[in-house]
Formats: sequence, C-alpha cells, structure tokens
Amino acid sequence: MAGRALAAIVSAGLSRFGKLEGFYAREIFAQAVKEALERCPNLDPKRDIKSIFVGHMMESTEHQGHTGPLVADWVGLNPAPAVRLESACASSGLALRFGIQAIMAGLADVVLVGGVEKQTHLATDDATEYLAMSADNFFEQWHGFTFPALFALMARAHMNEYKTRGEHLAMVAVKNHRNGAKNPKAHIQREITLEQAMASRIVASPLRLYDCSLISDGASCLILTEPGLAKRYTDNPVYIMGTGQASDTIGLYERSDFTSLRATVLAAREAYEMAGINPEDVDVAEVHDCFTIAEIMHYEDLGFCGKGEGGSFVESGATEIGGSVPVNTSGGLKAKGHPVGATGTAQAYEIYLQLTGQAERRQVQGAEVGLTHNLGGHGSTAVVHVYRSSG
Amino acid sequence: MAGRALAAIVSAGLSRFGKLEGFYAREIFAQAVKEALERCPNLDPKRDIKSIFVGHMMESTEHQGHTGPLVADWVGLNPAPAVRLESACASSGLALRFGIQAIMAGLADVVLVGGVEKQTHLATDDATEYLAMSADNFFEQWHGFTFPALFALMARAHMNEYKTRGEHLAMVAVKNHRNGAKNPKAHIQREITLEQAMASRIVASPLRLYDCSLISDGASCLILTEPGLAKRYTDNPVYIMGTGQASDTIGLYERSDFTSLRATVLAAREAYEMAGINPEDVDVAEVHDCFTIAEIMHYEDLGFCGKGEGGSFVESGATEIGGSVPVNTSGGLKAKGHPVGATGTAQAYEIYLQLTGQAERRQVQGAEVGLTHNLGGHGSTAVVHVYRSSG
Repeated sequence: MAGRALAAIVSAGLSRFGKLEGFYAREIFAQAVKEALERCPNLDPKRDIKSIFVGHMMESTEHQGHTGPLVADWVGLNPAPAVRLESACASSGLALRFGIQAIMAGLADVVLVGGVEKQTHLATDDATEYLAMSADNFFEQWHGFTFPALFALMARAHMNEYKTRGEHLAMVAVKNHRNGAKNPKAHIQREITLEQAMASRIVASPLRLYDCSLISDGASCLILTEPGLAKRYTDNPVYIMGTGQASDTIGLYERSDFTSLRATVLAAREAYEMAGINPEDVDVAEVHDCFTIAEIMHYEDLGFCGKGEGGSFVESGATEIGGSVPVNTSGGLKAKGHPVGATGTAQAYEIYLQLTGQAERRQVQGAEVGLTHNLGGHGSTAVVHVYRSSG
Repeated sequence: MAGRALAAIVSAGLSRFGKLEGFYAREIFAQAVKEALERCPNLDPKRDIKSIFVGHMMESTEHQGHTGPLVADWVGLNPAPAVRLESACASSGLALRFGIQAIMAGLADVVLVGGVEKQTHLATDDATEYLAMSADNFFEQWHGFTFPALFALMARAHMNEYKTRGEHLAMVAVKNHRNGAKNPKAHIQREITLEQAMASRIVASPLRLYDCSLISDGASCLILTEPGLAKRYTDNPVYIMGTGQASDTIGLYERSDFTSLRATVLAAREAYEMAGINPEDVDVAEVHDCFTIAEIMHYEDLGFCGKGEGGSFVESGATEIGGSVPVNTSGGLKAKGHPVGATGTAQAYEIYLQLTGQAERRQVQGAEVGLTHNLGGHGSTAVVHVYRSSG
C-alpha cells in the first residue's frame, strides 16, 4: 500500500444492536464506550481523549439535540470538546472523517469518534417520517417519497437497464442474514432462505420486506490516535490509509442516472488514491446495504465488479465469507441492524475486528486491507474509508 | 502576535437578518453565498471550493435535515463534500472550526463555512420548544426549563454574588441596539432607552423582554483558504490565529457555579494560547449575547474584566464603539438577531468587516485583532476564534 497512515484505530466498541428497551441514547452510547475503554487499559480517558465527534441523525426521536456534549458528559469526558455531525445515515462515517482531520491538523492526538441512535420506541410511521427528513422536504417528502420508495425507483431502473432480478436482491438479504447469524451483537441473528425473502410482502415495489434494513437502536465508537502514538495503546492497531467524501443532489429527481450513486464513485476514488490501492486490493468490506439494491449498486460503484454486473456478482458468491471480497461480514444494515447515526463507525468496528483477527465465526482469513462505505440519504452523501492491518 | 495563521478569510457573506417571509432556509443560505462570491471575483466556486461545512441547529423547523448536501446543491456546489454540524447555537462556530481543521489537515485548500436557520414562521411556543431541545430533555426540558428560564437562574446567581443589577443587564441591551441601529442587515435597527428596557415585561424573572435575543431568520458564510493562498483571492485577507472549543455538562443542574461558563474559559484559553495573545490585545469582539446576562458573564470569562466586574464594565462604557474593547458592534444577537445556526459565522462576518475597514458607521478605528465567542445551549458548548488583519 503506497499511502501513509492518516490515523490509527487503537480500540473500538459496539453496543448490542436491536430493540434496547429501557435505555436512552446517551446510555446506549456509554455501552459502546465502555467496551472501547475496556479493550484499551493503557488509555486514561480523561487525560488522553482530546476531542469527541458524534454522529447522530434525528433529534426528533428523543426530542434531544446537542448530542456532542450530551454524550461526552454521560461518559465522563466533559469538558473535552464534543460535536454532533449530521449527514443522515452517514453521520458517524463523517464523525470518523472529522476525527481523522483533527489528528491530521495536529489539533488532537487522541480522539473518540462514534455514533448513536434510539428509534425503536417510535411507531414505524413516525420512524419512517423522521428518516425521510433527510430527503428533500419540498420535492420528495411532501409528495410521500419515503426511503423505500426512493430506493424502489433505483431498483426498477437497475432491473430495467441491467436485467437485475428480484432473486439477486434476495441473495443479498440471504448472505447478510447468514453473516448476521454469526454476530452475537446483531439485531437479527437468524438465517433466512431465498424463498422466504422472495415471498415476503411488498414494501415499495419491487422492494419486499427482506430487501429493507432494520430500524434498530445502537451505538458504536472508535478510539483514534495519530499513527506514531498507536503502539502506546495497543500491539495491534489498525491504520486508516484513505478517507473520501462526496455529495450528490439532495433530490433524486435532479439526477440523470438512477442506477449509480455518483457520490460513492467520487468518495471511493478519493479514498483509493489516498491509500494508493485499487478495488481488487480490498480483502473485506462493509457497505451501506440500507436496501438490497443499494448493496448491488455499491459493488459496481466501488469497483468490485463492472457496471451492471452487481446482480451476477452476488450470485457468484464473490461477496460471501470465503469469496474474493467478502461484503458485510457483520450482517450489514440488513441483519446486524441500522441505528442510523451509529452505522458508520459500526462498519469501522467490524473492519477493526476483521483486521485484528477478532471476528470469530465470521473471520475472513488473512484479511489485511479493509474498506467501509457509508451512505447518507439516497446517496446525497457518501463516505469511504480504507484500512490496513498492522500485521 | 506570536502564533502562525491557521487559515485566511478571503471573503464573507451575510443575508439580511429578520423575518424573511417567503424564503426557505436553502434560499436564505444562497443569499449569503451570493454576497461572498460577489466579493471574491477571482474565485471559481465549482473549481476552487473543496469542502463545505454548514451549521444548522433545528431540523424540526422545516422538517428538513441533511442540510450539508442540501445547501451545497442549492448554491451549485454539488458534488463537493458537505456536512451539517450541530452544537445548538454554536453550530456555525463549529463549522468554522472544522473548516479550519480541514485546511490544517491538508485535505482542502479552499472551503466554504457557514450557517443558516429559518424559524420566524413558527409560533413562538414552538420555536421556544425546538430551541430547548439542546438542553437536557429528561432533566430540564421535561420540567419546563426553556432557555430564558435557565439564563434567569444564572442572572439571579450573578446578581446575588456580585451585586449585578437589572440596570447592568439593560445597559447591554441599550448598547447592542445602538450598534444594531447602524447595521443595515440587523433584524431590529432601532435604538432603545434604558427606561424602555427596564420597563419591558418580565419573561423569566429577572430577565425582561429586552434582555432576550431575537428569533430571526438568516444565513452567513465565509470563504477560507490556506494562509499562503489568500492573496490569490484578495488583497485584504483576515487571518485566523487561534481556535478553541470546550464543553460543559449538558445540564445546568450538574454545575457547581452558575456565575461563570467554564466552557468559555477553556475555549478562550486555547484560542489565546494558539494566537499568542492576551485578552487585552483584543480590539473588537463579537460575543454570544443570547441574553444580556450572558454578555456580562462573557466579559469576565473571556478576561476582558475581572470576575464579578461585568456589570460595572458595561456601565463604564468600555465595550461601546470607542471604548477599550468594543463588543457586539454588529448589534449582537440582541439587535442584529439570532438565526441560531447562522450566528457563529455571522459573528466572524462582522469581525471580517471590522478588520478590513468595511464596517461603515460602526467601524472600530484601527482594529487589528478580533475575537468571536459562540455559545451552544447554556454553555454546554463554547467556541472561540482569534483573528488578525493583514494590515
């Protein structure tokens, strides 16, 4: 790998994902931080952690904004600077990016980045409506476009253009549930069959229930240091080699092509160039499977396969554990769950486990290079990071 | 000034502040960007601006989140990376800080930072409730603590401890309205008398109507470059010499002292040290006068006067235009207005005008060193920046 390390991950934490009744967001975040601190006994959090970056999407769910100092206070890190980043479901992917920037800028040598969301206490209609607030209010939300509807349009376009079939979508769900069944923190730890997926009820045609990710509670975090400091805290750091971010139009209606997400293409290009790698160098990836069609589009936009080949790529088994580029070994948003603000750093948590050999029953043997891809809205934001093991 | 420049402001823009009927937030933001681009004809925005940082506090007001790519799209800057920062009323102060970080990190050489809020279409009760979402939901909001109530507790404590009087609070209002009357973009361009302020109705005792800042619509932005590039875009850049940020507990009830905001003290210390200056070096400052008592506390916490002397400091005239440290020459949140997400970079806009000699009737003669102080919530976040003129 040609690039230089931007920052190092010296520890990571993840709450259980799912319906976490009786806990507020601040308490769920503390669960993730507790794990990260326990993994890293050499760290004195009050002394060492200089800044905190928190991804949190929806203030409406708990009638609570200002989440940066809120969770910093709750985990005992006040008065360290703390801020909330919001870019819809890419919120904590951006928390990660800005934590890296703070280190690169020389303003902090150790930072905590993470994300949290609490949403299962809401009625599904309310959750769907709050989530839709990251689409264009006046030209999308107002006309009834929820996220399943927006991704259904993309699925139709992809099927029409590239002969992608409903079975291909279902294969993504089957794979991710198979992986999630091996993840003790996943929201749904249960395999499903292709027949179950294909027979599930329509949510927004052609998307069925099993094509949609989950409404989950959860939190995730990472402790980052400047690369030269990492060995003070762990023998086995993971280095962040590339970061990329791009935007697209806020409205799907403004785009000329519904079968590709340009922000993903641009963010991946930036991250690959910074890391000095090509897509075929990636050993394990977590991508933003908010809907099964999204994972298929990401295979193509990230360069794992050619344009229009995403359907046959999943069918080939290439993205299974044991395949050429295992994708969503954690179970992904589909089975591990999707507490939206927590998803970006939860993806990085899985890559941290994989590149340090701690992924247990879902370990990708010999994985040295990892990638995370986190999407905001229907691709109005994309953030890509590239990682390498210290081995 | 001992420090090195972190970044340069090469242009700035501000919408009119006030009740901007018929405009959505995205359109108001575009008004600010239009001014910044017109001031900077050498800049090709699509080619040069590499990243966008947007402060926006409340997604509930327009049922719209994901404000980063939204406004980037609306001002024609898609696909540049764009993100929303939220730290209550300090949201765009943090957008500024993270824009600086991106430049210091070497990830971008030219960035747009700014903020926006649209709230005057709401009923006052709804606006007050949405604003209160940045206080602690379970231990403050739920019990009826709105921001006037929280700052009223601080005012009572300060009055009790330091003999601060209602007249002192009113003097802040009179000064800021006097300045606002000279600002053609201010929400209220009208002087008031001490008697008017003292006779206005009680909002939360001891705070009266004229002790409270305004509910306004508005937007603000700055174009930042790495210091070495600034002269490509302007003959008269303003250099950012220091940035500081700190947090405090999310709940006022958790604090041992109600008469000082510790986050301000810590953020100011960081910014002063980085810039290599002392408080007495500051020629002009914009501080976060969300309530008049807040401005009095900030004088003390920023080191402009001693602890407990804030009341007599405003009475002395030191903070008037022509005094030793003019404060809130723009009119401040009190008269210029307080579109919360826009306030941080609006403060920097005023300092930019002052340090480039463009402040017209409110110009501070010979001003070379400026300071901005932006507060989130009741001091759970504070951000301080130090600036110097290129002259």
